[in-house]
Amino acid sequence: MKIDELYALLRRRGYLWPSAEIYGGTQGLYDYGPLGAELKRRIEEAWRAWFVGLSEDYYWIDPADIVPEAVVRASGHLENFTDPEVTCGKCHRSFRADTMLESARPEGVDGLTPVQIAELLTASHARCPNCGSTELSVPRPFNMMFALTLGTGDGERAYLLPETAQSSYLAFARMWEVGRKALPLGIAVIGKAYRNEIAPRQLLFRMRAFTQAELQIFFDPASFAVPIVTVASLELPMVRAGPRIAGEERAVLTRVSDLVSAGGLPEFYAYHLAHTYRFYREVLGVPADRIRLWEKSEEERAFYNKIQFDVEVRLDSLGGFKEVGAVHYRGDYDLTRHSAGSGKDLSIAKPDGSGRLVPHVLELTFGVDRALWALADVGITLEGERTLWRLPSPLAPSTVAVFPLIRKLHTEFARHLATTLTQEGIRVDLDIAGTIGKRYARADEVGTPFCVTVDGTTVDPASPDHGTVTVRDRDSKEQRRVRPEELLPTLRAAQLPARPPPAEHPVPAGSPAE
Amino acid sequence: MKIDELYALLRRRGYLWPSAEIYGGTQGLYDYGPLGAELKRRIEEAWRAWFVGLSEDYYWIDPADIVPEAVVRASGHLENFTDPEVTCGKCHRSFRADTMLESARPEGVDGLTPVQIAELLTASHARCPNCGSTELSVPRPFNMMFALTLGTGDGERAYLLPETAQSSYLAFARMWEVGRKALPLGIAVIGKAYRNEIAPRQLLFRMRAFTQAELQIFFDPASFAVPIVTVASLELPMVRAGPRIAGEERAVLTRVSDLVSAGGLPEFYAYHLAHTYRFYREVLGVPADRIRLWEKSEEERAFYNKIQFDVEVRLDSLGGFKEVGAVHYRGDYDLTRHSAGSGKDLSIAKPDGSGRLVPHVLELTFGVDRALWALADVGITLEGERTLWRLPSPLAPSTVAVFPLIRKLHTEFARHLATTLTQEGIRVDLDIAGTIGKRYARADEVGTPFCVTVDGTTVDPASPDHGTVTVRDRDSKEQRRVRPEELLPTLRAAQLPARPPPAEHPVPAGSPAE
Repeated sequence: MKIDELYALLRRRGYLWPSAEIYGGTQGLYDYGPLGAELKRRIEEAWRAWFVGLSEDYYWIDPADIVPEAVVRASGHLENFTDPEVTCGKCHRSFRADTMLESARPEGVDGLTPVQIAELLTASHARCPNCGSTELSVPRPFNMMFALTLGTGDGERAYLLPETAQSSYLAFARMWEVGRKALPLGIAVIGKAYRNEIAPRQLLFRMRAFTQAELQIFFDPASFAVPIVTVASLELPMVRAGPRIAGEERAVLTRVSDLVSAGGLPEFYAYHLAHTYRFYREVLGVPADRIRLWEKSEEERAFYNKIQFDVEVRLDSLGGFKEVGAVHYRGDYDLTRHSAGSGKDLSIAKPDGSGRLVPHVLELTFGVDRALWALADVGITLEGERTLWRLPSPLAPSTVAVFPLIRKLHTEFARHLATTLTQEGIRVDLDIAGTIGKRYARADEVGTPFCVTVDGTTVDPASPDHGTVTVRDRDSKEQRRVRPEELLPTLRAAQLPARPPPAEHPVPAGSPAE
Repeated sequence: MKIDELYALLRRRGYLWPSAEIYGGTQGLYDYGPLGAELKRRIEEAWRAWFVGLSEDYYWIDPADIVPEAVVRASGHLENFTDPEVTCGKCHRSFRADTMLESARPEGVDGLTPVQIAELLTASHARCPNCGSTELSVPRPFNMMFALTLGTGDGERAYLLPETAQSSYLAFARMWEVGRKALPLGIAVIGKAYRNEIAPRQLLFRMRAFTQAELQIFFDPASFAVPIVTVASLELPMVRAGPRIAGEERAVLTRVSDLVSAGGLPEFYAYHLAHTYRFYREVLGVPADRIRLWEKSEEERAFYNKIQFDVEVRLDSLGGFKEVGAVHYRGDYDLTRHSAGSGKDLSIAKPDGSGRLVPHVLELTFGVDRALWALADVGITLEGERTLWRLPSPLAPSTVAVFPLIRKLHTEFARHLATTLTQEGIRVDLDIAGTIGKRYARADEVGTPFCVTVDGTTVDPASPDHGTVTVRDRDSKEQRRVRPEELLPTLRAAQLPARPPPAEHPVPAGSPAE
């Protein structure tokens, strides 16, 4: 589906719509309606179960999203979190220079000076996207953070966080203090990030407020052991950095063990990249031919990133592979900066007594809104006149839809069944309106894995099948009669989020606490 | 416990700490650590299960929290969402006039003119809380919203939402459109609200960014039927408005049926007030003698509120009854204002054809952070040297703690058990460090309802009890040996959020969809 078709479908079903819609909408801001909110929450829960579940040393926190200026000065955002902004001399509207140059220079304008960008604009005959004028200013850096003032008068300058990662860096000292005082230590955040995009676009792919799920793992590069053997034989679709031929960026399936032995990736990096890949494949259900791991070259990645792979998913609605997440090996940049900025020494004593260490950071970063859009793009198919969303069952807003076949005769039983299942923690959608065909179609469209129909047999005391209901499987379309209580284990299992298989944990011997 | 003791305990266990702590903290902003984040999330889930579960016509959405200026102009926040701010002429710091007058005038300064407030300050010999000077300015209105700019240049003025309720009003038209086009229609939001408090204080009770859970029910006052009979005999601790004697505000237990028949409350109001009370009693576990429903008089409540009761809980840490939630009957104020502000007619055609109606709003509003603090204040008790948190089991961050009795011998079995339970969706805390007594104490302190110990018998193939574990109940301290698989139903039931008992739903006859 094209972007407009997919958006129309999602809006019609109440997944999302422009925020403050009755006021004409607000660019780059969206509200999630009931189905969208539930789906987004399910993605968040699945993410947490998977990544926080990777290790007993990984935790999640729920931090504030406003920080004082000193924090973003230390992180570099105050100086560097900018887009080059061009203003039209005629209509006075502003635009992003890199967006205006997208077809002429798809690799972006990072690292270029304003004068170089201005020359490129002239050379490519760039025109104002609004009025067509060629009278364009030299680009100025435009800081993308939202500034605000805490307190009265001149108050204190503060910012909405442009990325959740900073919260984990700020929390490291306290988490170290209340924890077991050992590395690795993972701190996950699922929260809002705010960016004052000059030109929000592509719906959920460039928003002004969006939800990130990020795991920052603090570690000692000399001793970060991971159970690499559990993923050694997994094959990952890699596009390595280096000379690439445009249009020929084919992913090469590479075993994790080979990435480590010949591919130059540290074990801890390959292990977490593998589990990131598995998350998209096994938890979000992205098909193998639609995902690749795209390495950023030294020129493309931020200077503090030692290794960076973006997770890209091929989206028909957006015309190709798009970034949905990434794994960044950030070295000791973050804690070094915040040590200097805060005056608090964030280094730790090495356990072997050989001095102190500023912990390194491995960042696993994910766009929750982008994941939701990717699920829709990848999962929704048109089968004849019907729309079917093949959503992994733990992510479905409802696990089971309950239908009375005939409203007047079967609703009481259906409602009782729905209530009973709800009390057991099952996500139920009781749907009593319309023909049974329409109700099946509605359930298919929102990805409900099971439909249960209450019919004449169910409520007929004379029938040998009295009390049984029909259950239909969304994907196989198979129907069978069951007693409702037999359904419970199936429904319960269907909504449990997938978790990574547990690694073997050797019992640490001779620990002081023993 | 005093406020400082309780905060110290919560901070020591990593429930919460000042945001950007390494930079000296940010006034009025807190981060929730692992236990706090989990507890907060559990409160949110319990709230949603309870209130969205009240009716099939109540939904929840996940909206953006930035709105354009036109929205807060229409809602009245731009003009009226102010605190009277006094500046010291000597040290130039600013303070809230109502806070400075708290002991002289506990009822607040709402409705007074700046000159009247200035006279009161003089009469009560008010001094600057910082430097002690009496040289104080006449109060100025200080708007408590955080303003920001969307886009480049002068951009578009926007605000962080000071209450989640506005999102529901903005979403009403779209929710009506995608829904069944009938009243009542409930729209719930759990989200951040932002208020630039002049003087944040009392920790989670006056924050600059906090989490609200609100349900806005849109309804026709002529036809809003509720199953009042299901709560008719429930007794509520009411403090009615009218002449009150200070210090003598004793709650009077009143049946819901009497509130309606003699008490002058509409059925729809009494019904939702009763379920609000039940939420605090049955879901959050607040004891009967610590809760009351405090009516706001016409002078005390906002002019658009026709009826208002605050839910107050007695908190030792804050020295008395404090507001934690409220039920507001707001009339048609909100949709009328947003109809005028947006130019979009938000009235609906009455089903009986007798013209159009601007839906009325019943607002159920709750502070999630305040609920968390109240749970700690009410639930944590010192028993000798031990701290015990009697947390309702669905709210506990962990449902079960798993202990190997001797680390070297029993950890493998314990870890396997913990993994198995986790895979079944149980919230497990595997704790292998320290004496068994310390581990029980840690579990008690964080309110874990069950502790399971793996010991020599468990792993002894020669024992008739081979494979069994000891389970201890937090409150009764009873221990018994069970097979781990017998635990699953108990643990599962313990973490299911309480839901209101389902009301009887008559099948609407002759509906057009039949």
